[in-house]
Amino acid sequence: MKKQAILAPRGLERLLARHPWIFRGDLASLPEGEAGDLVAVGDRPGRVLAWGLWNPQTSLALRLLFWGRDKPDLPRLLLGRLQAALDLRRRWCPGEDAFRLVHGEADGLPGLIVDVYGDVLCLQFLSLAWHRQQELILNCLDGLLSPSAVILRNDVRQIEREGLVPEKALLRGVFEPGESRIVSLGDLKGVVYPLEGQKTGLYLDVRHYPRLLQGLCQGASVLDAFCFQGQFSLHALLYGAREVTAIDQSAPALEAAQESLALCGLPPRVDWVCGNVFDELRRFEEEQRTFDVVVVDPPPFAPSRRQVDSARRGYKDLALRAMRLLRSGGTLLFFSCSHAFSRQSLLEVLHEAARDAKRSLRVVTELHQPPDHPVLPQVPETDYLKGFALEVSM
Amino acid sequence: MKKQAILAPRGLERLLARHPWIFRGDLASLPEGEAGDLVAVGDRPGRVLAWGLWNPQTSLALRLLFWGRDKPDLPRLLLGRLQAALDLRRRWCPGEDAFRLVHGEADGLPGLIVDVYGDVLCLQFLSLAWHRQQELILNCLDGLLSPSAVILRNDVRQIEREGLVPEKALLRGVFEPGESRIVSLGDLKGVVYPLEGQKTGLYLDVRHYPRLLQGLCQGASVLDAFCFQGQFSLHALLYGAREVTAIDQSAPALEAAQESLALCGLPPRVDWVCGNVFDELRRFEEEQRTFDVVVVDPPPFAPSRRQVDSARRGYKDLALRAMRLLRSGGTLLFFSCSHAFSRQSLLEVLHEAARDAKRSLRVVTELHQPPDHPVLPQVPETDYLKGFALEVSM
Repeated sequence: MKKQAILAPRGLERLLARHPWIFRGDLASLPEGEAGDLVAVGDRPGRVLAWGLWNPQTSLALRLLFWGRDKPDLPRLLLGRLQAALDLRRRWCPGEDAFRLVHGEADGLPGLIVDVYGDVLCLQFLSLAWHRQQELILNCLDGLLSPSAVILRNDVRQIEREGLVPEKALLRGVFEPGESRIVSLGDLKGVVYPLEGQKTGLYLDVRHYPRLLQGLCQGASVLDAFCFQGQFSLHALLYGAREVTAIDQSAPALEAAQESLALCGLPPRVDWVCGNVFDELRRFEEEQRTFDVVVVDPPPFAPSRRQVDSARRGYKDLALRAMRLLRSGGTLLFFSCSHAFSRQSLLEVLHEAARDAKRSLRVVTELHQPPDHPVLPQVPETDYLKGFALEVSM
Repeated sequence: MKKQAILAPRGLERLLARHPWIFRGDLASLPEGEAGDLVAVGDRPGRVLAWGLWNPQTSLALRLLFWGRDKPDLPRLLLGRLQAALDLRRRWCPGEDAFRLVHGEADGLPGLIVDVYGDVLCLQFLSLAWHRQQELILNCLDGLLSPSAVILRNDVRQIEREGLVPEKALLRGVFEPGESRIVSLGDLKGVVYPLEGQKTGLYLDVRHYPRLLQGLCQGASVLDAFCFQGQFSLHALLYGAREVTAIDQSAPALEAAQESLALCGLPPRVDWVCGNVFDELRRFEEEQRTFDVVVVDPPPFAPSRRQVDSARRGYKDLALRAMRLLRSGGTLLFFSCSHAFSRQSLLEVLHEAARDAKRSLRVVTELHQPPDHPVLPQVPETDYLKGFALEVSM
């Protein structure tokens, strides 16, 4: 048997708490094996407590896959976890054709993301091992879902840490650049470009929340900041909004939004603004514009702990401007998708912004990741999306 | 002008943070006025910052109602706040006939609860002042909703602190003891006894959550612990459960549940168990019974901070037993309505129970109070309901 990984005390603690991440600094001795191998992990030679995917090139050296002594059969394990992942989505997201099938750690497959857009699958291999096991993963997914195309969306900088090169690729099937799919999103249909859109094509994690606008939009003026492909804006129209202003700095996202609007046969009462949200909100304030509903769903300001302070300033500035643009009694939907920025911090920032703007706030509902983005209690990193629906009064 | 209340520094801090509670210990000098009067509050003589309802008999001496120098007109203020409360429910709970119309502090009316059950209103005056202003409140509610009966459900011990006597009373209209109403609850109708049921008749705060069972119940066996009037059980039947076991120690609650079941025309596949949940779960474990779905919605184990430790033991014991009764891959819905027991503590308890039961957990969705129970960010006490939907695996 090859030499196993031996854990230092802190690593052992993580393993026993069922956290799947073991850092290089938590290892007392390194295992034998190639990058991507499944290696044995224990607290002393000869005692195996778990098995993990090994990558000597990165500080996150081991991603634990299985807790137990005997080496798991990787194809069987992978198929079982993918099947369990699919079962969970069938229970909790029935009838949906755009959803996250595999949410990495929370589906027992650390570093693997699989998103479904109709008959197309978009994958991310955030761990080198999955890249090595590509054929196995594709075969399992074929067996479960028979996709017509499987696309790799490894076009993110963070995978460089794993020794991988950022790339987009068609792994199986036929799919042309610029090709799209129509999927169900909330109460509407929307277009998705699996090779071009943000993340793997869409922001799947907020897809249910445009429905919150249902009782709020009749005759209302709505501002949708960081609108991306306009799902909040389109739902606002569906629910009777008088006028919608939608801002994003991505021209292709705004084009896709207009394509979805036409597809849904909605009235074209949207002012699509291609620009910087901070600048536009400042301009609207100068123009003394007001809105009944404001949605703010910014990109992650704090992808890591180092950016928490600057994120706080960014969120507060946005919240302050949004509140000043709201009519008294209006509604603010405010999201953060920064894992490192806590729910409590976000609520504090909103409360501080309200004090500065001389407004009072009520939390009408708190928002979390949807069921296809499950959370492991022992891995806080799996819980990243937070949001609040607030009533804002003078 | 009568002598105003003068705040000590801590009281001023609370006032400036817009917390509506000023304790007697936070006052540097007491105001002139009768219990129930609206008195001026400031940080020095002659400077008025807010107005509050005064009660010299209790440690929570002032409940702030209005921030500003000039004395507000109480009838106008009350009508305005009730109208705003109704507007919020119309936006966020459209079409519902059973909801909380006034959630005390979060609706700007500290200590006042108003629940709606069709044409009947149930009130709680948790502050002496509202008791004194009873006629005014009733007139406002008449103007807004024209209820056929208004019932006072002051049958809670905590109001003794205010110098009030626990009581149930018909304040207006006609309503007989034992009379009921039929209201919409989730996807079903249910019966409510406004004079006899728990709290003001029903647990309105969890009324939407039986819908979570929708994708989970086809052919399933479901355990509903602390079932009260059986809303989770009845929805489980509606969604195709093979068998349901429901436990509550209140015989009248179980009778009401069976009345609702007959009303909805559901199949009588429920084993109604009148007993202690802890004992029954222990018995089921001995009998090696298992379930696909378990719902645990206990009464508040920690109504105040002093009970947090015993609450932790109670929740953990319940969670452990529930997990042992679940088949691998089954779903646990677990709630706590104890304000003093935090969301983070509940998640920790669930995680500890899982370790002890040798299970692994995934959080599928987090649960909060519904929109008709809004939360003030500066008053953590207004946020009390927390829950998790968990997938539990071996």
